[in-house]
Amino acid sequence: MKSVVLGIDIGGTNTKFGLVEQNGGIVARQRISTHADQPASAFFDRLFGKIEDLKGDVSDGVEIKGIGVGAPNANHHTGMIETPPNLSWGTVDIVELIQRHIDLPVAITNDANASALGEFRFGAAKGMNHFIQITLGTGVGSGIIEEGKLIYGHDGFAGEMGHVTAVRGGRQCNCGKKGCLETYASVNGLRRTIYELLSEMTEKSGLRDLKWEEMTGDKIHEAAKNGDPVAERAFGRTAKILGEAMADAAAYFSPEAFVLFGGMMGAAELILDPVKEHMEENLFPVFKGKIQVIPSALDAGSAGIIGAAALIWGELEKKEKASEGKEEA
Amino acid sequence: MKSVVLGIDIGGTNTKFGLVEQNGGIVARQRISTHADQPASAFFDRLFGKIEDLKGDVSDGVEIKGIGVGAPNANHHTGMIETPPNLSWGTVDIVELIQRHIDLPVAITNDANASALGEFRFGAAKGMNHFIQITLGTGVGSGIIEEGKLIYGHDGFAGEMGHVTAVRGGRQCNCGKKGCLETYASVNGLRRTIYELLSEMTEKSGLRDLKWEEMTGDKIHEAAKNGDPVAERAFGRTAKILGEAMADAAAYFSPEAFVLFGGMMGAAELILDPVKEHMEENLFPVFKGKIQVIPSALDAGSAGIIGAAALIWGELEKKEKASEGKEEA
Repeated sequence: MKSVVLGIDIGGTNTKFGLVEQNGGIVARQRISTHADQPASAFFDRLFGKIEDLKGDVSDGVEIKGIGVGAPNANHHTGMIETPPNLSWGTVDIVELIQRHIDLPVAITNDANASALGEFRFGAAKGMNHFIQITLGTGVGSGIIEEGKLIYGHDGFAGEMGHVTAVRGGRQCNCGKKGCLETYASVNGLRRTIYELLSEMTEKSGLRDLKWEEMTGDKIHEAAKNGDPVAERAFGRTAKILGEAMADAAAYFSPEAFVLFGGMMGAAELILDPVKEHMEENLFPVFKGKIQVIPSALDAGSAGIIGAAALIWGELEKKEKASEGKEEA
Repeated sequence: MKSVVLGIDIGGTNTKFGLVEQNGGIVARQRISTHADQPASAFFDRLFGKIEDLKGDVSDGVEIKGIGVGAPNANHHTGMIETPPNLSWGTVDIVELIQRHIDLPVAITNDANASALGEFRFGAAKGMNHFIQITLGTGVGSGIIEEGKLIYGHDGFAGEMGHVTAVRGGRQCNCGKKGCLETYASVNGLRRTIYELLSEMTEKSGLRDLKWEEMTGDKIHEAAKNGDPVAERAFGRTAKILGEAMADAAAYFSPEAFVLFGGMMGAAELILDPVKEHMEENLFPVFKGKIQVIPSALDAGSAGIIGAAALIWGELEKKEKASEGKEEA
């Protein structure tokens, strides 16, 4: 009988979930469509309908100790998901919805925070008590670990590095602001940079043959590898803006490392070194040469499950410690 | 017999110190010249030469429980002051130097962190577990409280909001970088803004009659109160840049409040409302309308002593709690 937790990674399109041991091993996993247009309760009915199957996949049997959830706009403090951008759920009490199905400890946090926790427990930041995980995906998210704990802030929404202003008066962001880091350093931001450069440059570029929809991160990466001057410069510009933003973040947090994660890291070889260079150039002197910039060590396909599991394993251990303390006293 | 701590506020010109009760009451205080050109050991010899006098000032007698120090570039983690900008001390082990004189618990931190702790225990942020204190003085410093604790980061130097880039490629900063918030939002930054505006504007302004040295914060404030268009615009520009930077800080920390402190707050009536407005305008939507911008409640003359005392009182209480826990166990 294995002790596991259920880690749930809710995305706008798909939801991944798995049974995860205390050492980060995934003993069983599945994926369902999120059906973002249906109510949250219907989603959890479907999800928990699969849990018995999932348990059946493990030959020696499992005991589920708790449930961790990573989801967009999930608030660790309140247990609510608050009007998530890609789900038509409105504001829902996720913890309550889950506990209707299984009466176990539940902890939730947003997806970027969950991946930071996964990295902290099982990934590239193992043993680091001060680091910033940046997810460079469709958007830009961040999870910030200080003294070994996630920073949540007063209302649970701290760590929104994607919405720090990278360029004053810059690109329109979906959040309503202008110039957010997300509009430059996400995969979609990279595409916008390609369009900007195609407007500025006259050099030949195969990227002119692609429509907006066709211009994926992979295509831009491929073009850069083949020496396309527009694609190359786009990565350079992205790295500059991201490195500058990281230097500012360093002034606030004095981290040991930045861990970079997400779709953009498919082009890690074009991003890591220039980002580090631009960060160094803009660092407050006392931090120069002290901060690592490293790629995530988590598998992109399971990082969300692992992160959600890390969250609840952490909570369970805290509870155990607290109750041990009480017994001793 | 009163229980007190010794709070020491080391500045480039003067050092203030006082005996402070657990409720923040200062029972005796003094000030000496720092003589920044002499070695640190000579400074502490002089300082501790005064301590008996200071104790004598309290009629019922005192028991000193510990010593807190706020000083530029003081590192809480190491107990060292590391090449402070306005002192020719190099890097010195302050804790060791002090314990040569009195063998008591010593805690040190930089001056901006100390004032944040003072505000947290005794001032405008009493009862707030998430806030950012910004000192708008000759430079710009900050102390950041998250979950009721100062953020120190990996190397003890976190919370350098003064050296976040406010204007990309902007004004030269003493730190070597360009465009640091400090070069705009400090009192010296305000003076630089006056010069910038005098170069741009043709309106009549009494500020043209002043030399660089004469153009103090007070003079600029006075001019603005009398309707000087250059001085008025300078405060407006300062408030805009500071408000924008605060909006970014909010995205990282989700604070309950910003507490503003320091010489610039002599002109609080010209700063507070516009800063708040510019912050609101630039906030990530989820934070809008949630974050207070308030003036420090500490007296400028004693805030440094109070802050240093708050630091060591906090440490002493932590130790007491820990030892109580052990006894119970």
